[in-house]
Amino acid sequence: MKKQQNILVIGAGLCGSLLALRLGQRGYNVTVYEMRTDLRKTDISAGRSINLAFSDRGNKAIKLVGLEDQVKELCIPMNGRMLHDKESNTFLSNYSGRDYEYINSISREKLNSLLLTEAEKYDNVAIHFNKKCNSVDFENTTAHFQDYITKEEFIEDADCIIATDGAGSALRKSYYLERKFLFSFSQNYLTHGYKELSILPSETGDYKTYKNALHIWPRGDFMVIALPNLDGSFTVTLFLSYAEGEYNFNNLTTPEIVTEFFQKEFPDALELMPNLVKDFFENPTAPLGTVKCSPWHYKGNTLLMGDSAHAIVPFYGQGMNASFEDVVEFDQVLEANKDADWETIFTAYEKTRKKDTDAIADLAIDNFHEMKDHVGQAIFQEKRKIEMALEKEFPEDYSSKYSLVTFNENIGYREAMLKGRAQDKAILKMLADGVISASDDIKDILDKVKIETEAILDDHKVAGLR
Amino acid sequence: MKKQQNILVIGAGLCGSLLALRLGQRGYNVTVYEMRTDLRKTDISAGRSINLAFSDRGNKAIKLVGLEDQVKELCIPMNGRMLHDKESNTFLSNYSGRDYEYINSISREKLNSLLLTEAEKYDNVAIHFNKKCNSVDFENTTAHFQDYITKEEFIEDADCIIATDGAGSALRKSYYLERKFLFSFSQNYLTHGYKELSILPSETGDYKTYKNALHIWPRGDFMVIALPNLDGSFTVTLFLSYAEGEYNFNNLTTPEIVTEFFQKEFPDALELMPNLVKDFFENPTAPLGTVKCSPWHYKGNTLLMGDSAHAIVPFYGQGMNASFEDVVEFDQVLEANKDADWETIFTAYEKTRKKDTDAIADLAIDNFHEMKDHVGQAIFQEKRKIEMALEKEFPEDYSSKYSLVTFNENIGYREAMLKGRAQDKAILKMLADGVISASDDIKDILDKVKIETEAILDDHKVAGLR
Repeated sequence: MKKQQNILVIGAGLCGSLLALRLGQRGYNVTVYEMRTDLRKTDISAGRSINLAFSDRGNKAIKLVGLEDQVKELCIPMNGRMLHDKESNTFLSNYSGRDYEYINSISREKLNSLLLTEAEKYDNVAIHFNKKCNSVDFENTTAHFQDYITKEEFIEDADCIIATDGAGSALRKSYYLERKFLFSFSQNYLTHGYKELSILPSETGDYKTYKNALHIWPRGDFMVIALPNLDGSFTVTLFLSYAEGEYNFNNLTTPEIVTEFFQKEFPDALELMPNLVKDFFENPTAPLGTVKCSPWHYKGNTLLMGDSAHAIVPFYGQGMNASFEDVVEFDQVLEANKDADWETIFTAYEKTRKKDTDAIADLAIDNFHEMKDHVGQAIFQEKRKIEMALEKEFPEDYSSKYSLVTFNENIGYREAMLKGRAQDKAILKMLADGVISASDDIKDILDKVKIETEAILDDHKVAGLR
Repeated sequence: MKKQQNILVIGAGLCGSLLALRLGQRGYNVTVYEMRTDLRKTDISAGRSINLAFSDRGNKAIKLVGLEDQVKELCIPMNGRMLHDKESNTFLSNYSGRDYEYINSISREKLNSLLLTEAEKYDNVAIHFNKKCNSVDFENTTAHFQDYITKEEFIEDADCIIATDGAGSALRKSYYLERKFLFSFSQNYLTHGYKELSILPSETGDYKTYKNALHIWPRGDFMVIALPNLDGSFTVTLFLSYAEGEYNFNNLTTPEIVTEFFQKEFPDALELMPNLVKDFFENPTAPLGTVKCSPWHYKGNTLLMGDSAHAIVPFYGQGMNASFEDVVEFDQVLEANKDADWETIFTAYEKTRKKDTDAIADLAIDNFHEMKDHVGQAIFQEKRKIEMALEKEFPEDYSSKYSLVTFNENIGYREAMLKGRAQDKAILKMLADGVISASDDIKDILDKVKIETEAILDDHKVAGLR
């Protein structure tokens, strides 16, 4: 009965194209409007392609739509963090003590293209490009678009509208500006911005540094990271304060000072990047923001999904994974409420999902500090060493916060956060107090960590307010 | 030298009028534009006047401008919370174990009038009413106004503009909409709204219930409070969910159901409020929101102060006190930077102040749950009993979170929050674990609370991230 209904999806990025595909598979009539041009028809030079971390939560969604094998071909496994210090020493820190747990580097463009092509195979799915949504009349369930090429403006009607139009969502803006209901909303920027750079392939087309890792140059207040691409290049990202510190985006204004900065802080990276200065001044500096809001839906008319509802900073590698998990959760709500109206479905979806997207937003900011700073500190390294040993020796009994978030797609982000933070606190406290050390019997450590973690979780419950 | 400078203040509410007075005292040329009519010239019926909690942080500001004696005459001391249960039993819970620590109920109108009159005594201060600010051009330090009466629109120029125009600030809106810099911003609404009601004086003009307390009818998911006015009335506020629970603002739509609700939940209050139904349907239901943002200033041109920078929910009775403290802090920054430019002053002010206004925003939400719910729970009551005893026996050695926030104007809100929360957690944990009980030797309790509090604060430091 619901299958006759027409769904308008705003935005054909990763979340929108996956959503369109899944709704198409469920038999809905789906019309998608995307403001950009069709990325399958444009040429993006190889070294500049943007890659993303793809892990188990994202893969759960890909399995749902039956594309696991095809996506696997796009993936480059990254087994751990390769840390680079200022003396160009490297140290590989695995993401998990379990060999089969790793994350992947994947091309945004290739993955998005695959999802678009698969979605379009369904007769009941239509995707239109170069159509920008300017606003949504959520009372009347209509959206206002403009065609980028013809400049023509038009209004589209639907039974319901789902906005997957990213951090700058037109629907969210309409919720905020119309003031027709109490809309809680936050946008929070870090003091740091980012700039993408690249390590190009060697002359023989090979990777210039170790392929199967996420490279990090942690420097306390700033950092560089690099993720591999299929063509032998790496996409490199500099995360740096706009205005603070000796070097910052505001004062890196000449080739000389940029080179000096890299020479001093990232000498081994500089050696791999003869193209540094060109990249630096050609590529934009972009801000890092977190968006949260509530409610996501207006009655049964409109719904925010993906980044439009919860944009996060990239430091947990979970942005795409969280948006894909939105589609899985939405699909489960649809399945469990087959005869329900859209308002019931949207309400149930937000109720089950929002606590988890709030949690990954906070976790992503935690990880900013962990990546640029803590990974270089002795006590955090000792904690990590212990956690690797625990995961290796007791694969069924222990998962670090990172593993809970990244590899345990059957628990929600919020549960992963609460348990993971309590574990971190327990281990750091016991290390600081000399109650455990990395050389202790590992079973003894496991028992102590479990008891202390439970005690911390209990304390939180007693305190109530926090 | 700076004394020649012209400062434009937007908004002549409590914060704006105090700021204008203080800047006038410092010799600046101050022009204030207020959108409302002059409240000294309008008639507000007695029972409906809005009162506020006034305590030590606010009084510090009042002392600064030399009005302590005059303000004292407007104050009604409230020594504690008078709790009313469903069976109409009452229980007085003091705010502090120290007799000289109490809060005050004060009329917003009378206090604001006093500040306006005092500010206008300075030749270098001018206040204009009925002029609404629509937007601020913060690049050019000009503000756009419209006269409510003549409808005339005009633009005012200044050396710097300080917006004390409240939670709906025109300057903050301009910061947000112009997108000329990265503006972090949040507005978060509670699921509850509030409605003001009243207990009128008796026929002989007396208070119908105990005068010197803040009355609370805590009911878990909702509550009623009442604060005394000088004329013998109380201003009563109902805090209730818009949509959830058996009774909520959405379904309290008839005189019968409103009366039924009060009869069932607040029988003793109902007895004092024959005017309940009239008040209920004449007075609006208003939302409860928290606003945070950053930066507060744009270069040395414009600055947000008071609610425009940090609107908070009313549950700690600190809204006005926090805004008054803003003026004290700003004055201290002015004093310490006499030869500095406005950008230096605004930057220094935000740096020192924002951490504290963020803290009181969070504390105010904590206290919402404490007032409507925790005050009625046995473990919280036992904690409170212990804290009263500690403050009474060791007035120099112990202050509860409430005392730190409310009566310790020489430490910041953030320090009060961190220490106060750790103390709460320590006491609740030890009560739950049976380590202490209210019948123990009080010196023994003090020692245990101090040690456990320090341990909790240390744990937080070790965990780093949180």
